Amino acid sequence: MTKNKIRPGSYLFPVPTVLIGANINGKANFNAIGWVSGLEFGPPLISISSNQQHHNNVGIKENQTFSVNTPSEDMVEVTDYCGIKSGRREDKSEIFDVFYGELKTAPMISEAPLNLECKVIHTIDTSEIANSKNGHDIFIGEVVQAYAEEKYLTNGRPDIEKIKPLVLSRSRGKSRYYKIGEELGVAWSLGLNYKKNKK
Amino acid sequence: MTKNKIRPGSYLFPVPTVLIGANINGKANFNAIGWVSGLEFGPPLISISSNQQHHNNVGIKENQTFSVNTPSEDMVEVTDYCGIKSGRREDKSEIFDVFYGELKTAPMISEAPLNLECKVIHTIDTSEIANSKNGHDIFIGEVVQAYAEEKYLTNGRPDIEKIKPLVLSRSRGKSRYYKIGEELGVAWSLGLNYKKNKK
Repeated sequence: MTKNKIRPGSYLFPVPTVLIGANINGKANFNAIGWVSGLEFGPPLISISSNQQHHNNVGIKENQTFSVNTPSEDMVEVTDYCGIKSGRREDKSEIFDVFYGELKTAPMISEAPLNLECKVIHTIDTSEIANSKNGHDIFIGEVVQAYAEEKYLTNGRPDIEKIKPLVLSRSRGKSRYYKIGEELGVAWSLGLNYKKNKK
Repeated sequence: MTKNKIRPGSYLFPVPTVLIGANINGKANFNAIGWVSGLEFGPPLISISSNQQHHNNVGIKENQTFSVNTPSEDMVEVTDYCGIKSGRREDKSEIFDVFYGELKTAPMISEAPLNLECKVIHTIDTSEIANSKNGHDIFIGEVVQAYAEEKYLTNGRPDIEKIKPLVLSRSRGKSRYYKIGEELGVAWSLGLNYKKNKK
């Protein structure tokens, strides 16, 4: 086996794709992002890393709120559209049926199966912790409320087989969207067979 | 459409599964984690959020290094095993063929298609930014080197269709692993059809 040294990159496979909502001058804007991660259970914390060139960052900083909207497979075209077109030049406030929750300033997408309403509790500018060429804002949000239609839930919790979310990744020289594929097994369970098989 | 308010959670669909490597008292340990995210391109930054109960955190704090190893579908059992068994009670140093890079203290898994060697540049304790019940360490690492065999690359870059990584998610009351499914289209491209279709 020969391991090649390849150009350092923050390569991660797979990556989710979510639509981040923010209000800018009182108007909803949405951008597609793949750099998103859970951080903590209680209180539930989630982070996004958003290029400082993004129009959304202005609104998130202004209101200290944002939303994380999980699109389904059938929203792939409009999700990509939101990632291509900047809110600075394109009004994206009319694309979706938008609703607001208790924070009042985090616009959420009715059509998206799952919506997280977030309050910013911490922000990191990557150019302050590293010698960044681009500059990203890492917004850490507390999820103050989550929303989903009953049809996307099992026992009150979101279900991936009902949501049918998008995977974003890279193959054959291009970034591509994928569906979720077949199940391989139950987590925190199928690993129990591992040692047995080895013996 | 009726949106239910559901219990706030850091719900994210899908989530990747990676094996985080750390040295503890000079011995390699590996833990499976889903809370991982890219943050920045230049320099490449990546974050993991790891429960403070995890044995790995001791080693990451000690050496200020860690590795991110992307398992393939056929590593699902051993990946789950690494997530189930704590390095505090179980010696996980002999499971894989381990190699080290220039940082010397970030153990990497030869069998994993992709390895990122990371130097910690910033750490956040979630109990310091929120009133956390559990406490997670968010380690932000700079990827100083990446490694992959030629068979997982296309034009020198990792290719998801060759890597065949794992998706971790929740359905029917349990966390489950999934394969990547069929391609839906090229990103930053298929969204260009969106407005046209609407008109």
